[in-house]
Amino acid sequence: MQDLSNETHDLIASDRVEGTAVYSRSGEHLGTVKNFMVDKQSGHVAYAVMSFGGFLGIGDRYHPLPWKTLHYDPGRSGYVVDLTADQLRDAPNYGSDTAPNWDDQIYGHSVDDYYAHAGTIMR
Amino acid sequence: MQDLSNETHDLIASDRVEGTAVYSRSGEHLGTVKNFMVDKQSGHVAYAVMSFGGFLGIGDRYHPLPWKTLHYDPGRSGYVVDLTADQLRDAPNYGSDTAPNWDDQIYGHSVDDYYAHAGTIMR
Repeated sequence: MQDLSNETHDLIASDRVEGTAVYSRSGEHLGTVKNFMVDKQSGHVAYAVMSFGGFLGIGDRYHPLPWKTLHYDPGRSGYVVDLTADQLRDAPNYGSDTAPNWDDQIYGHSVDDYYAHAGTIMR
Repeated sequence: MQDLSNETHDLIASDRVEGTAVYSRSGEHLGTVKNFMVDKQSGHVAYAVMSFGGFLGIGDRYHPLPWKTLHYDPGRSGYVVDLTADQLRDAPNYGSDTAPNWDDQIYGHSVDDYYAHAGTIMR
């Protein structure tokens, strides 16, 4: 059964974002969206967490990406980021057993700073 | 393994919102969050879709709730809405085989209008 409610021109269902592929501008498959972090009060998506590297879920690294770095490409049914695999490798990331302390806003700021300086096009 | 990245004072992971219980102000369990609709461009959560009624997933009705109607209650580990079960029953809803046309903004407006008039406290 096709669930027509899952995607529109403007709105996308949360459980459809999860698992969506992420590509570089040149078309390289970089990873997939694991989940995303939502501000409870404002309802704004702060970060999409992309799993990157690893194999069949083993050894994955999680890279929080500011939502604004992700551009949805309907043609690829995925997100495109203006980042190379090397830029991603150097970006803030963590393993499944070393979750960041999101309560400490310094972590979020370090993520924002990295992408601001990486020259990604923010919407 | 406890995943400390899943919830903080400010941020909550999308896959943790999904499945979270929704209660009335008086503590009645109304349903659970199925998923939520995100504006692709702005990254803003427009609606949380609550499943309501039904039994073991059969006969569920899906009620889109404006994000602002949901108040997170850490004590209950769930969301509280200023709505009675009767108010929810009368609210815009659809079944799994009758998805709304989100592309038609009239649908979204009808949802917003209902809750604006239902007297729910919007943050």
